[in-house]
Amino acid sequence: MSERSVAQNAQLALLLEVSGTPKPGNVDREREYDDLRFEHFMAGAVGARPGLDRAAAADPIGPAFETAVEGMAAQSGGNTQFGALLVLTPLAAAAADRRLSPSDVDAVVHETTVDDAAAFYRAFEHVDVAVDDPPDGLEPLDVRRGRDAIPELRAREMTLFDVMASSADVDGVAAEWVSGFERVFEASEWLLDGSGPVADRASDVFIELLAAEPDTFIVTRQDRETAEEVQRRAQAVLDGAETATDLAEEFVERDINPGTTADLVAGALFVALERGLEV
Amino acid sequence: MSERSVAQNAQLALLLEVSGTPKPGNVDREREYDDLRFEHFMAGAVGARPGLDRAAAADPIGPAFETAVEGMAAQSGGNTQFGALLVLTPLAAAAADRRLSPSDVDAVVHETTVDDAAAFYRAFEHVDVAVDDPPDGLEPLDVRRGRDAIPELRAREMTLFDVMASSADVDGVAAEWVSGFERVFEASEWLLDGSGPVADRASDVFIELLAAEPDTFIVTRQDRETAEEVQRRAQAVLDGAETATDLAEEFVERDINPGTTADLVAGALFVALERGLEV
Repeated sequence: MSERSVAQNAQLALLLEVSGTPKPGNVDREREYDDLRFEHFMAGAVGARPGLDRAAAADPIGPAFETAVEGMAAQSGGNTQFGALLVLTPLAAAAADRRLSPSDVDAVVHETTVDDAAAFYRAFEHVDVAVDDPPDGLEPLDVRRGRDAIPELRAREMTLFDVMASSADVDGVAAEWVSGFERVFEASEWLLDGSGPVADRASDVFIELLAAEPDTFIVTRQDRETAEEVQRRAQAVLDGAETATDLAEEFVERDINPGTTADLVAGALFVALERGLEV
Repeated sequence: MSERSVAQNAQLALLLEVSGTPKPGNVDREREYDDLRFEHFMAGAVGARPGLDRAAAADPIGPAFETAVEGMAAQSGGNTQFGALLVLTPLAAAAADRRLSPSDVDAVVHETTVDDAAAFYRAFEHVDVAVDDPPDGLEPLDVRRGRDAIPELRAREMTLFDVMASSADVDGVAAEWVSGFERVFEASEWLLDGSGPVADRASDVFIELLAAEPDTFIVTRQDRETAEEVQRRAQAVLDGAETATDLAEEFVERDINPGTTADLVAGALFVALERGLEV
């Protein structure tokens, strides 16, 4: 059996993430939105590949991420995997020439530069991403400004790591960047310890992560109260008081989309694949 | 929006094929077998990519196909996309440096060599493929002999096109090779003329192809009678007398798998994507 490359495992992680079902509120194999469909995630994973190849070839993280986002966006559904790629890019870079330990990934993100930050800002020009207003004083660095914010980044000498650190308290993916991808690595262990179809394990891990912390994408698109309700309901599924399928129907109906939690699952799938998870 | 490469469209065709549902008897987004699951098709499409890259780079068809099969087989479900890759490899080669017309593909398959045939035989060593006994007199060329049949191929100076021609009457993919991929190109027009989600169009086209001719993979695994029953039942779906969903449940139950028809759908999706089908 031939071995998959690092970039192939990253691409497969994107595909397996959306193959898990049910993943309440997210597009999965059995649920989709009229304008954001399963097929858009397939095309997103195909399009992201050149960027993942760059990350795995130890190209700088920022440009690799921008390339991945540009390719991901080459489908008509809009943003499918921006956050997942922001998780996967440093992980793929760490897997390429280190051992993909938390400290290896930590080294990768700490080595990012102002140029990486600039590329990250440019990535927002390829696709509409739902984001909150920036905190007071950080308006010049609003990611929605795209490349217009780059002079300000340079003036403040902010690396991509610094940018992530500035939003770690409101964004679950940024929080991973500054914590050594703690939740991703923990969830990868759950995947490796599980049994049965990988897609089912991805669904289980999604519910466990959702029950553990409020999803920041829900905080952004709805509010903290809704995110906390979702967290309680996910815990109710773990307790056997509700079913994941009922939650999935309801959340899609209410347009509640725990996108950050899905991003972490994609990262966990990648780490697990690199560590021998068999598909 | 960045454009997908030829190899990316071929990979996306594999992913969209299995995303269409219902596709009675085949693995799709909502149905799978215990030992052959949706996730195996995801991994197959990821693994096939290096071979698709070779085909799109105008490498010889046979080795490109063998590479694609070897990568496809790097998952635990067994044969997921052998036939689909046998359809896609010459199409990708034709798309790479010609205009992907039926005559362009015809030229590609007629240019195949004895070395291409040898690589095709080696491909059978990477994965178990359900095939019939060869006709009388062709036992030395039984594909199940793998590389052991290569001296006989060389003695008879059989090209890969010759090999396909020898089984065109019993294998629907081989029949495409010798007919300028007639059914694939026709089905690609149906996809382009359709509307709505691409996955739904893939499902519709699958039923139409199934109603038009007996599926040769069913003939191989079951018998001609079953294949003809499946053809009639697909026509009944088109006539509104049965539903595709009922057929899907029944065929999975009976382990009836119209795999050749799925292979043609993958080819049709590729041609349609190359000709502007939007996802």
